[in-house]
Amino acid sequence: MRHKLHALSAVVLTSLVFGLAGCGNDAKPAASAAASAEQPASAVASAAAPAAPASQAAAVRNEMIKPIPVAEVKDPAMVELGKQLFFDPRLSRSGGMSCNSCHNLSMGGSDNLAASIGDRWQKGGINSPTVLNSSLNIAQFWDGRAKDLKEQAGGPIANPAEMAFTHDLAVAMLETIPGYKAEFSKVFKKDKIDIDQVTTALAAFEETLVTPNSRFDKWLLGEDAALTTDELKGYELFKSAGCVACHNGPNVGGASFQKMGVVEPYKTAHTAQGRMDVTKSDQDRFLFKVPTLRNVELTYPYFHDGAAMTLTDAVDTMGKLQLGRTFTPEENGQIVAFLKTLTGDQPKFELPQLPVSSDSTPRPDPFAK
Amino acid sequence: MRHKLHALSAVVLTSLVFGLAGCGNDAKPAASAAASAEQPASAVASAAAPAAPASQAAAVRNEMIKPIPVAEVKDPAMVELGKQLFFDPRLSRSGGMSCNSCHNLSMGGSDNLAASIGDRWQKGGINSPTVLNSSLNIAQFWDGRAKDLKEQAGGPIANPAEMAFTHDLAVAMLETIPGYKAEFSKVFKKDKIDIDQVTTALAAFEETLVTPNSRFDKWLLGEDAALTTDELKGYELFKSAGCVACHNGPNVGGASFQKMGVVEPYKTAHTAQGRMDVTKSDQDRFLFKVPTLRNVELTYPYFHDGAAMTLTDAVDTMGKLQLGRTFTPEENGQIVAFLKTLTGDQPKFELPQLPVSSDSTPRPDPFAK
Repeated sequence: MRHKLHALSAVVLTSLVFGLAGCGNDAKPAASAAASAEQPASAVASAAAPAAPASQAAAVRNEMIKPIPVAEVKDPAMVELGKQLFFDPRLSRSGGMSCNSCHNLSMGGSDNLAASIGDRWQKGGINSPTVLNSSLNIAQFWDGRAKDLKEQAGGPIANPAEMAFTHDLAVAMLETIPGYKAEFSKVFKKDKIDIDQVTTALAAFEETLVTPNSRFDKWLLGEDAALTTDELKGYELFKSAGCVACHNGPNVGGASFQKMGVVEPYKTAHTAQGRMDVTKSDQDRFLFKVPTLRNVELTYPYFHDGAAMTLTDAVDTMGKLQLGRTFTPEENGQIVAFLKTLTGDQPKFELPQLPVSSDSTPRPDPFAK
Repeated sequence: MRHKLHALSAVVLTSLVFGLAGCGNDAKPAASAAASAEQPASAVASAAAPAAPASQAAAVRNEMIKPIPVAEVKDPAMVELGKQLFFDPRLSRSGGMSCNSCHNLSMGGSDNLAASIGDRWQKGGINSPTVLNSSLNIAQFWDGRAKDLKEQAGGPIANPAEMAFTHDLAVAMLETIPGYKAEFSKVFKKDKIDIDQVTTALAAFEETLVTPNSRFDKWLLGEDAALTTDELKGYELFKSAGCVACHNGPNVGGASFQKMGVVEPYKTAHTAQGRMDVTKSDQDRFLFKVPTLRNVELTYPYFHDGAAMTLTDAVDTMGKLQLGRTFTPEENGQIVAFLKTLTGDQPKFELPQLPVSSDSTPRPDPFAK
């Protein structure tokens, strides 16, 4: 089996050139993308997601996808605080929305909606990406406008179409809650809570939301029986067709910005311009952060506009638009079968109990004029 | 201490007459209300909430408030299924609201909003009561229109202002999810899922949501040091002022319908007529199910219109309107201190993982015209 896969590698490297053409990133030369994909997990993962231990790394198959490293919890009290904040709707103007509303940890860290429901039922601007394994991404948001989870975490709280609060009001609210005061003080050793502490704690919790032990990772770590013949065929096709050129590394994506619609333009009524909205460079038009394929079975619908309702649809569209290839139903089914092996252990924890408000905690009115 | 409390009982029984006058229920004679309040916990608790074991019952102080019995899980698989359903937003039209949205188990089983946020941001018709210990209530909803949790559970799913789905669509959705199919089949041994199974499982989960081991219950069970002097004074006042006439039994309420505004009318712009909306009898105008005071610190704001933002407000208003009594700030503080001892162990469980949708599961559109 090993021998066969090594032989396959040659095919992959050949097809990679084609693959990269079909998944082109005008901003990065093909060679560097291929090289970074071949780097060990630690190179792509954030500092918070440690590389696999050496003994494990030695056993990893030589593939462009790397196993998800187990999360290392450095500060349990900070992670616990971040978890409470993640579930706390008092961080929203209405008092009715939390991070977990759109990044639901019961549903793959997503809301399974094409567009999320924001404050006053506003339609979300872009499909909510999963929070799972997001620490492994090169940047946050589809357009990468936040460099890390800490920077991301402040976004939705203050976005008028999302949680619609302000950082000042959120911090002032937290200051009135004795339970939070005690926790922040213990974790950050400061007299006052500030938004930096809030986003630091949220990021610390989110960094624990990795999903190791998928069947595919077991296979990567040498367990031949972890995949069925069809799933393995799907993976071989995923490589030979060129999908792996963009969807690689431990997060099977998340490592680069790529154009949506290479061989054919992507038809959508959605107005997002992707990376260009950040860089203002026309070269970056329709470049989006490659979404992770980890737990992809759980995170439907797909694409930045949420237009692909099923994995079958998504694989079909990606094949045509990015690779100029029409997969047969059998091929599509094999790739989908492979993709479903990327579902790992979901985060396990007790539903947090939130510190109780005091009499001076503002009482939000979702219906205020 | 025991002796002193027995002596107090006489005072309580005397004040009870006054108390009942101040908390009158035109539908029930005072004598029967007093008698039922003196019955053991098992008489008020639903069948699902077993009475305390005899050895424990023997040690219980002779008070009108009884300890919360520990939940007995008869069918763990059904409870687990009910838990998943409780957290599943696919039971709503939008795909964005679950039972937990308004009965948030991280926040005392409530949403801490005066009026809940419903489908398309509709304003909820009445303050969402806590789901905690709700199996101990004589009926469900503020007006008691559902006789039990099973009957209640179907309500919000199909209420156009709440989850805004239909029972047929909810069941059809569940039928497309292999994980649910397997669980329902295992629990109910039937080929088809129906709404009766859905509400049965939801009720089975909700019956486990009791909160034993509050400091007050420890005191009831003989632990003198469980309450401070101020808390005990608050309880004595709670009894002597007449609050206990309505707020009694294991749920410290939930056992009868009583008029809101006895000595003085309750001023509110809210249109709910309470029990009259169910019975159509003018005698029942403004009669509401007495809310539980269990975990009341966690379940603000208070009253059916959510108008009392703090416990201090609520105690003040209740004193004036129900009992014709203005508590001094010291008295109010003592009663509030006592009320905070009613917070028990919150339900502890792992955040459930929801069974994944299949390709044939409908994809909800919250923004559909």
